[in-house]
Order: sequence, then structure tokens, then C-alpha cells
Amino acid sequence: MVSIATGGVSREEWGRSFGDWYRRMLDEAEIMDYRYPVKGCGVWRPYGFRIRKLVLDIIRELLDEAGHQEVLFPTLIPEDMIAKEAQHIKGFEEECFWVTHGGLRPLGLKLALRPTSETAFGPMFKLWIRSHADLPMKLYQVVNIFRYETKATRPLIRMREVLTFKEAHTCHATAEEAERNVREAVGIYRRFFDELGIPYLISRRPEWDKFPGAIYSIAFETIMPDGRSLQIGTVHNLGQNFARAFEITYERPDGRHELVWQTCYGISGRVVAALMAVHGDDHGLVLPPRVAPVQVVVVPIPYKGYEEVVRSAAERMGSELARAGLRVEVDIRPDITPGEKFYYWERRGVPIRVEIGPRDVEKNQITLVRRDTLERTSAPVERAVEAVERLLSDLTEALRERAWAWMRGHVKAVSTIEEARDVLDRVGGVVELPGGGDGECGRQMEAEVDARVLGTPEDTEPKPVGPCPICGRQAVDVLRLARAY
Amino acid sequence: MVSIATGGVSREEWGRSFGDWYRRMLDEAEIMDYRYPVKGCGVWRPYGFRIRKLVLDIIRELLDEAGHQEVLFPTLIPEDMIAKEAQHIKGFEEECFWVTHGGLRPLGLKLALRPTSETAFGPMFKLWIRSHADLPMKLYQVVNIFRYETKATRPLIRMREVLTFKEAHTCHATAEEAERNVREAVGIYRRFFDELGIPYLISRRPEWDKFPGAIYSIAFETIMPDGRSLQIGTVHNLGQNFARAFEITYERPDGRHELVWQTCYGISGRVVAALMAVHGDDHGLVLPPRVAPVQVVVVPIPYKGYEEVVRSAAERMGSELARAGLRVEVDIRPDITPGEKFYYWERRGVPIRVEIGPRDVEKNQITLVRRDTLERTSAPVERAVEAVERLLSDLTEALRERAWAWMRGHVKAVSTIEEARDVLDRVGGVVELPGGGDGECGRQMEAEVDARVLGTPEDTEPKPVGPCPICGRQAVDVLRLARAY
Repeated sequence: MVSIATGGVSREEWGRSFGDWYRRMLDEAEIMDYRYPVKGCGVWRPYGFRIRKLVLDIIRELLDEAGHQEVLFPTLIPEDMIAKEAQHIKGFEEECFWVTHGGLRPLGLKLALRPTSETAFGPMFKLWIRSHADLPMKLYQVVNIFRYETKATRPLIRMREVLTFKEAHTCHATAEEAERNVREAVGIYRRFFDELGIPYLISRRPEWDKFPGAIYSIAFETIMPDGRSLQIGTVHNLGQNFARAFEITYERPDGRHELVWQTCYGISGRVVAALMAVHGDDHGLVLPPRVAPVQVVVVPIPYKGYEEVVRSAAERMGSELARAGLRVEVDIRPDITPGEKFYYWERRGVPIRVEIGPRDVEKNQITLVRRDTLERTSAPVERAVEAVERLLSDLTEALRERAWAWMRGHVKAVSTIEEARDVLDRVGGVVELPGGGDGECGRQMEAEVDARVLGTPEDTEPKPVGPCPICGRQAVDVLRLARAY
Repeated sequence: MVSIATGGVSREEWGRSFGDWYRRMLDEAEIMDYRYPVKGCGVWRPYGFRIRKLVLDIIRELLDEAGHQEVLFPTLIPEDMIAKEAQHIKGFEEECFWVTHGGLRPLGLKLALRPTSETAFGPMFKLWIRSHADLPMKLYQVVNIFRYETKATRPLIRMREVLTFKEAHTCHATAEEAERNVREAVGIYRRFFDELGIPYLISRRPEWDKFPGAIYSIAFETIMPDGRSLQIGTVHNLGQNFARAFEITYERPDGRHELVWQTCYGISGRVVAALMAVHGDDHGLVLPPRVAPVQVVVVPIPYKGYEEVVRSAAERMGSELARAGLRVEVDIRPDITPGEKFYYWERRGVPIRVEIGPRDVEKNQITLVRRDTLERTSAPVERAVEAVERLLSDLTEALRERAWAWMRGHVKAVSTIEEARDVLDRVGGVVELPGGGDGECGRQMEAEVDARVLGTPEDTEPKPVGPCPICGRQAVDVLRLARAY
């Protein structure tokens, strides 16, 4: 049962066995059960589901504030719709699950299970948008999507049925407004990941690897403890590609009809994988308080003769913390030891443990243990709420800082292929190499470094960065490469 | 544009054109767009989505309180799983959508899009349940389900992709506990529909029409304004049928292994159809405040020279009501008249309209109009919150009473086939006929009355109720029949 090392393991050492840890945590912290009898499909268990909900609450709040409205579309997309945008179908035809039969009869027209919903929104945008007064139209939905992955699948990271996908779809009157919305979406995602303390790199993806049907794509990546990069969010400028295919037009004030300009942006269940990975340690999960289903667990430490007094003190403390709006559990399970309770809640990433033993009751105090450092402090009972709230806020900040520092330490500027390879082989992370002007250099780098080009850093001005190691010409932008999930 | 009659139409008259009204309201109140290019599939629009969310919040709260936990399962169910319970697959094989291809390749094993999830939960319950300490296990999820309907489809009522389905699945140690849970589930649904003011009849469904794989099924029905019945919730006792098929066992305290006992219960998007129908009138929707996305709309009534003063009074009032926790809109759209605003919000069912004109400002008062009666009252500004809250609570109560009175008036005890037919032909609703002891009488009644047997009233003791009009024998239970959706 006690299967996680609890010694002071270094982050590097822990990172080397990250794959095992991740699998075990999905199971032991009851996040997702991957034994469902369809390959690449898993079940969100109650504790995982609550984390998922708290995470989605944040992105919903941010999108709503920024004028998006939530909708819900069907899963099924007819073959003729999904095929309307040529690049799009080319990018997805190998990846679609197809429904061909209703009952025992073959369907007249095959239906795809949405791999993403641009082509489901297309015909409806055409109906909903009449005039400039209808613009901008900014919609989103939280749904499942389906990709027939032929690569190795992995819970939350690469699944055939992605159970958690937030996709926003917007229409605008001008190219400038669409461009501005791309910036706004990037800003929303920054704030979202900042809330979760997940560090990120923002890159403009290379031409050959943009979203099928987009003009350009921007991706957020984080670095996992094993040194591999994980794409955790994308923002796409679709230009008029889908508007043209679906004839989505609006009437301008001057009476002319124009095609709209579109953007879309998505975040998936991967964010929960990243959350587990960037904050976790060898004891288990470490959850930022904002998304912790249980923020404080109160554990009575019974000694013979004091069982009742510590238990009732623990229950009083639980009620008081709950009244202050905190998500609290009081763990009074009779048949397991305090040590087993500590272990149980640590594994689940509960940010603060409050212990109450006979000494605490006597001194009218509580003992606090914060999950990230396992540091113990005490506070008088009458200032318990204040002490817990301060500790939660300190922990939130500490997690974010630790995670950012670790990621920054794993992004390295290099100048040769050999150096790039060596860094990725030894410590992983992301390397930045001066990149030649055309796609050919990037693709050749991918082959020679044995890594994937994530793209060029977003929001940097072009300036000389050294010679491209492939073509030798002076480059004005770096290319980021990583061994990617 | 103004397409709803606003004269004082009687409920009966309005009911006769209910079908048209319903379609128009889905569109004009922006609930669901049914023009999506797959037959039987529609899109939840932003306003409808908000109603849906508020409705789901209630059922989630009730289920959570009663010890259920939310989970999320995949959509895809492999053919061999769905076929494990013989009655179940027999009931659903004609109705399943089948996924046969991944990309361009045929799949080794066909995958069904869940028509319901007993057979998805089955293999996982088997893994999750070890001992009596794991029981009861009460889970639920809110998902989409798929039925290849060959009958006429209708938005929210009969769809091929049902976008909103709350399904609970439970496992228990004994038959008695499962039976008790059926009662508890019926109680939860009662409270749920009571919150929404939706009246219901609870019937035990006839043997020939129970859920495929259940021992027995209980259904909640309401009566729509056109006199047809609509099933809005079901609770099933599954006995050990699925436990046997999936080998879901637990270890008893004495070490023996036993099969679990199961129940399941579901509610779908139909509840929103019922909500629209039972409270609506010829002006549009009438929403119970608890599920109204906008509970109060404040409309300034500008007169020349007073535009600014009424507008700022309206905005102050809006802020005050919002501070009190109400969902408020202040409609200051410049280019439409107050009359158009009234019409717009009435159609959307906003429970209370607050009007503020120059006279109101002068007298330091507000004018209140309640949506159900369109009655106008006024209240001093300093008691606005109190007045609005009282009116919301009165309206909630009045809606519930009106709806129950109307439904009760449409349930009629009759004793002959002719009478039954005549009542259903003339006014619709539900008729109750003494029912013979076996299924044959009921089935024959269905044919002769041209209606569907809903079942026998739940929670009544068997007692003589007159001779069965089919077999002539003294019956101890009535059968409910209706023209059903």
C-alpha cells in the first residue's frame, strides 16, 4: 500500500521515474482510471472530477469576463461538413472515428465524431451572423473530442476520447479585430496558467505544424519533470479559410457583404496532467489551493484517554474553517492511524494539514503542516483561520515560483546541433537554436537533434541571433526544440 | 418580428397551437437551434445553456447531498460489453449508433455510442468494488447519449443525440438497500421537479415497457399543454441482472462473495422542454426564478429631457439588486423602444420587470411587473430589494400551484374504453382505467384507446377499483393511459 518513497528525493531523481509516478498517482489519488475497456479511453473518478471542475471554473470565469458565451454543440459532424475546408480534412481524415451505422442499417452519410468543432460551428455561424451588429461573436464549449491516435496513448496526455476539451470559436468583422482577439486569448491563457502556477513557453508553431486550416498557430508548452515538453494550450488565427468554406458573411454598415475573420483556441485535460506534474513530488500530488477539492484536512491525534477531546476539538476546528469558506475535511476515520491519514491526504495533494493532539488542545493551539515543504508551524486556535489563509496564499506563491524557476532552468540557448542533442539527452527541457529562414532548416534540425520544433518565441522582435547550424546563414529568430509528449 | 399573439388567450386555446409555440420559443428565446445539419441534433444556444446549467445545478446539489459522487465516463462502449446483458442489448441494438472505422481503417471491434451507460459502468464497478466497505457506491454523470430514433424527432424531446442526460448508477449490498435507494431516488426527483414547479405523476411502468435489463421501472410524467404526456424522469431497479453479467461482487464481513444489487435513474434535457411548456403562455416563456438566467430586468422609460435621469436611476437600481445577489440586467439599449424591450424579455421568461420612468424617479419609487400575471405594482426605492424578493417568491409559488392545478384537472378516472378515448380525443391528459391483472389487458387497451399505458400509480395500495374493461374481472389497480410524446 505504501508505495511512494518518502525520503528526501531530489527533483532530478524523482523526474527520472516520472512516468511510473504519474501512472501511480492517477490511480492512487483517484484521478483517472485507465483500465476502461476501450484503448485510449479513461474514466474521471470523483476526486479527479472535482479537480477538473475547479480548473474548468477558472477558465469559464476568464472567458465569461472577456465576453464569451457558453454553448453546447452535437458530437456528430457529417462527412460533407468536415470536408468543406480542404486543409482541415487533410489534417484530420486519418484521425477521425466514423459512425457508419444507425441500428442495423448503414447511414446514408457517414458521421465523424468531432476531432475539434470548427466545421460544426461553421454552418451555425452562417445562420446566426447577419450584420456587423452580431460581431464579434465569441462562443465556447466544454466537450469531449475524439482522435484515432495511432501513437502510444497516455492518460490525459494522448487519448482517443479526450473527455475534457474547452474550445472557443470567434468571428470578427476585420482581420485586425481577429488579430487582437488572438492577443486577448493568449492573455486569457496566461492568466489561466498563472492561476494554476503552471509555467509556460509561448511559441509560434512552424508552418508545417500549424492547425489544419489556420493561418498561424500559437502554442503554450510546459516542461514535464522527465524533461519532455507538453503542449497545454493553443490559439489559432483562422483568417477567412473556414468563413470562405462555410460562406459566413455579414452585412457592413454600408450594405456590402463580407466574409468574417475567425479565431479559435483550446485547452484540454492535459492541463490536469501538467498540474500534477509541475507541482507534484515523491510524496504525491501538491495542489494549488484554488483547485484543491480539499484545501485543509484536520486530523485529530488521539492519545489514550484523550480520544474524545481531540476529536471534538478537530470537529470544531473543521466547522470554523468551513464557515470561513474553505474546503475542509475532518478525518475521523476510526480504524486507521494518524500516519496513514497523513499519507493518504499527502498523496492527494491537500495543501494544508491541521493536526490536533492533546498538547495542542492543552495549549489552545493547532499544528499546521504545509504540503509543499512539509514544514510544521503552530497557531493559536483563535487565529486559526487567519493562519490557514496566510499559509494557503504563501503556498500558492511558492508553488508558482518553484515551478517557474525549475522550468527556466530547463530552457537553454545553444548554438550547435551537437550541443542541442547533448542537452536534450542529458537533462531534457527546451533548447533554443538560431533558425534559418525557411522550413527546411527546421525540419532538418528535427531529424538531426531528434526532437520536435515547438516554434519561435512569441512576442520577441526579430534580431540577429547567430548563424543557423543547418544553412549557416545569420538567423533573426531562434527555434525551440524539445523531446515532446 | 412580433410573432406571438399578446391578447388574453385562454390556456386551452394556447394549448391547441402548442407545437408551433414550442418551436418558435426554442428559436425566439434562443434556447436551442435545431437547424444543425444532422437530423435529430440541435445546438444549445447561450440563453438556453444558462437555463440548462441552472437546472443541472439543482439536481447536482440534490444528488451530492444524498451522497452521490460525480464522475465522467467515455462515450464509446465496445460491442462485447454492451451485449453482455441479454435483455439490454435486445432493447438497444436497433437504437445504437455504431463506430466502425478509425481513420481509414475498419476497427477490430465495433464501438457503440452510449445509448445509456450501465454497460460502461459495469466493468469499472467490477474493478472498484472489493468489499462491503465500498458499498453503497453511488455515482452519477452528466453526458450526452445517442439513440438512433426512427420516429419523428423533436428538439429536447426526442433527439438522436441527447445533449443533456444526467444518469446515476448505484451498487448496494442487499436487495433491501437497493429498494430503499429506489425510494430515495424517487424522493430526490420529487424535490427536483418541485423546485422547478413541474407537476408530475409517478407510475410503475408495465412489464412490457420497462427499461431493458431492469426488474422494474418507475417513471415521472407531466402533461404538456397540448394534452400529451411527457416522460421526464425514470428510476430503475436493476436487481442483479447487470451484476451477474459483469461479475460485480463484493466480500461480505463473513468472507463470502456476493453479487451486488443495482439501481439507476436518469433525467434528460426534456426537463427544459417541460419547464417551458408547463409555465409558458402566449407571450413566451415564464421561468421560475431559481432557473431564470435573468431574474429581474430593469427598463428605463425615457421621456424627452429625462433620458439621463431615468437611465442613471435604472443603473443604480440594477447595481443594488445585483448586490443583493439577484441576476439582473439593465436594458439600456439606445435604439429600441421600451415596448420592444418588454416584449423581448417577456418572451425570454424573465420573472420580474422593473420599470423606471420620470414619475417613478419623482416619487422615489419603482414600478414592478410580474411575468406570470403581468400585474403592475409599485414600491418605494428604499424597499426595492425586499419588494422584488417577495414578488419572486410569490411568483415561484403561483407558478407551481397553477401548474399543479392544471395537471390535476387533466387526470380523469374513467371506466370504459369509449370514455377513455373520448376524454383523450377531446381534452387529452391522462385517463385512469381499472386494469386487468396481466399484460394482455393493458396491451389491448393501448390498441383500443389508441394511447400508451404509462403504468400503475406508484405508492398506492392495491384495492378494488372496478371491472377491467377488457377482461371484465375486478381490478385492484388502475392503469394510466395517455397520448404520449
